[in-house]
Amino acid sequence: MSKITDKGVVAKVAGSRRGFLKNIFVSAAAAGALVPMSLEAGDDPDIVKEPEWGKKLGFPVDKTPYGYPSPYEHNVVRRVTELLSSGDMYASVAMCPIHEIQDGIIVPNGLFFDRSHGGVATIDPNKYRLMIHGLVEKPIVLTLEQLKRYPSESRIHFIECPANGSAEWRGPQFNSIQFTKGMMSSAEWTGVKLSVILEDLGLKPEAKWMLAEGSDNSHMARTIPVEKALDDAMLVWGQNGEALRPEQGYPVRLLVPGWEGNLNVKWLRRLEFGDKPWHAKEETSKYTMLQPSGKAIQYFWPMEVNSIITSPCPEKPWTDLKKGDMVEIQGLAWSGMGTITHVDISLDGGDTWVEANLKGLVLPKSWTRFSYIIKWEGKDMVIASRATDDAGVTQPTINQEVGKVGVEGVYHRNAICSWEVKSNGEVNNVHIRS
Amino acid sequence: MSKITDKGVVAKVAGSRRGFLKNIFVSAAAAGALVPMSLEAGDDPDIVKEPEWGKKLGFPVDKTPYGYPSPYEHNVVRRVTELLSSGDMYASVAMCPIHEIQDGIIVPNGLFFDRSHGGVATIDPNKYRLMIHGLVEKPIVLTLEQLKRYPSESRIHFIECPANGSAEWRGPQFNSIQFTKGMMSSAEWTGVKLSVILEDLGLKPEAKWMLAEGSDNSHMARTIPVEKALDDAMLVWGQNGEALRPEQGYPVRLLVPGWEGNLNVKWLRRLEFGDKPWHAKEETSKYTMLQPSGKAIQYFWPMEVNSIITSPCPEKPWTDLKKGDMVEIQGLAWSGMGTITHVDISLDGGDTWVEANLKGLVLPKSWTRFSYIIKWEGKDMVIASRATDDAGVTQPTINQEVGKVGVEGVYHRNAICSWEVKSNGEVNNVHIRS
Repeated sequence: MSKITDKGVVAKVAGSRRGFLKNIFVSAAAAGALVPMSLEAGDDPDIVKEPEWGKKLGFPVDKTPYGYPSPYEHNVVRRVTELLSSGDMYASVAMCPIHEIQDGIIVPNGLFFDRSHGGVATIDPNKYRLMIHGLVEKPIVLTLEQLKRYPSESRIHFIECPANGSAEWRGPQFNSIQFTKGMMSSAEWTGVKLSVILEDLGLKPEAKWMLAEGSDNSHMARTIPVEKALDDAMLVWGQNGEALRPEQGYPVRLLVPGWEGNLNVKWLRRLEFGDKPWHAKEETSKYTMLQPSGKAIQYFWPMEVNSIITSPCPEKPWTDLKKGDMVEIQGLAWSGMGTITHVDISLDGGDTWVEANLKGLVLPKSWTRFSYIIKWEGKDMVIASRATDDAGVTQPTINQEVGKVGVEGVYHRNAICSWEVKSNGEVNNVHIRS
Repeated sequence: MSKITDKGVVAKVAGSRRGFLKNIFVSAAAAGALVPMSLEAGDDPDIVKEPEWGKKLGFPVDKTPYGYPSPYEHNVVRRVTELLSSGDMYASVAMCPIHEIQDGIIVPNGLFFDRSHGGVATIDPNKYRLMIHGLVEKPIVLTLEQLKRYPSESRIHFIECPANGSAEWRGPQFNSIQFTKGMMSSAEWTGVKLSVILEDLGLKPEAKWMLAEGSDNSHMARTIPVEKALDDAMLVWGQNGEALRPEQGYPVRLLVPGWEGNLNVKWLRRLEFGDKPWHAKEETSKYTMLQPSGKAIQYFWPMEVNSIITSPCPEKPWTDLKKGDMVEIQGLAWSGMGTITHVDISLDGGDTWVEANLKGLVLPKSWTRFSYIIKWEGKDMVIASRATDDAGVTQPTINQEVGKVGVEGVYHRNAICSWEVKSNGEVNNVHIRS
């Protein structure tokens, strides 16, 4: 919904939900379903007693020069599991609690997922240097301050590890949205477009590929076609208005909007331009995709159209609902190939589908929220979402995906996800395959 | 710039800056102005030695379930001054370092400005209750979980204290952007539109005003016309994807987009609907505006169109620039009455004006970034910005503003701001009056 009507601005708005919204609590209360404490008009407002915290001063404004969440939110954190690590917590991933992200398209920096290959480097920005060399007219080494001299730009984009959901490709493994889909997050990134820098330095015509290498202990390196570098790639130093967090590559990372997370090289040390791909370690030993034929696809980049229902989900069940309650099904859709145009919802395990509303900002290569309001009948059901992007691609079923790419590859699984909702409101991870 | 071209989506794009961008470093280096370490094509990449932090593992991904900024960013914090407090730090303001906000429209929650009247309340969300009563058909008391059952919505809006800039109305007082304009910030807010709740509860026809009262020690209360409540006001529980921070009213605040910060009542305890305004303490003793006639304006709400140059500014000088360098002048424009349509820049103390580019997302009642690139000639100059919104309002000069509202009132000062840039790159707060 999020109808932002002022001229010049945004937002696809699906049909009105007005009919659905009426009397959510009143009708529920009338049905005896949900009974908030109800007042009669004219009741003394003091029926709600002054709470204890209002009887004393709070903490002073100079107590927190940099602020933190309420202590009551201590369970809203990134989580790790050894099952998804590479043997230790230095080459592993801390998953974003996407069910706790508050229905927008910004993930707070403290909760942004963290995939690192050699631990999180701690870099003195005064010692930081970025080298840009190879097939450029004017190779250069920049300090951070020099890099920031370039005209800046800010854009909201998700970053997703291609292994997101990889634990699931043979069958349900985690009864959790955080562990099945938490290898992604979204932020407003600030930096400079690479095309601006390359216009300044002069890209030689024979340059076809770019190597991006990190300065961390893993020496993470990836090859990227120069067309993408010139299209919308950025060197970013800002994340949601502040400096990049250490886990996100402080002080500088590459941003390759919509493409595999590992291409967005953190703690960036150098960009080299060449006439052929590098076949770096992380694109031979890893981040390749084994096919049924026994051959592997070596270079594939964009994260395909995908979606997940975030509410309800295993961590966010409907156990407090009563039969007859109105309730909003919510979720996230995204595509690294463009803009979300359409999301369908199924309430019957994929037999039939209805169109969901898109909510708020609908931006390219960005998380997009969808919504569908139902009356909860208190019966077992299997719910699923299926997104389509403006590249014309729609999420496949699991059987369609397996038929195409087999079951060996752990990357780029974007088949339709589904949850079983039990009559008692519990939610479980189940797979509908066709 | 920030050209987001995909269909259905956003963004005003001013003219190309391509001509300005060319050879920022190369031409500067040719002029001897700025000489980054320069490589010859074919040089050994190892000319940039492996940095010390790459020779050892970083910290593991499970070290920070909730992450924090790099220790090198410890100076990027909210700041207080007794000169702008009400006598102590419980009724005071911690100012946002807006010069450090990374050129987008999201302020990280840790840096969001904090104006509190009785300290920051710490609230147990399980004990939180919200009462909605008065002239509604179905008065109600809601728990936090019940409130969150309503369909949610997320929007990006600034919040600004009407006293922002108030220290400055007689003449320059602080040589600082943080202390002159830091009583504002911007975030993505998540909650429910008040119109949705009122549709559910039934607003009586005689209801013309709404009282919003906080549960904190100050019992902050403000009267708001019901038209605004039904237009775009929200009850919000989310801020940049996580729960509201304690300083922003955890667990629930009122959001009144574009209107005075103090109307966005934090730690919200109740909403009461009535047929006349309440004349609450904070709208009689305070938040009124003394006029030259000796009378005071009691109810005025929208924050008028405004702008400020954030780079350069006193905290972000051009002392590292050399004559001939290309440099981007950047700033923020905003209006509580609509959408920014136009920003002009003056480089000669307001004698002549040129149009700046608007960058990135241009949203209603939201921060909007502007940019203008110049060649730095190393001469003294006075720079200023002047914004216009789609309500057709343009910022006045100081003399125009003083002529209209006098010098007694400390609120709603939105006259044109200017900085003096010295030939050595230092930047000072100066006032051009006409």
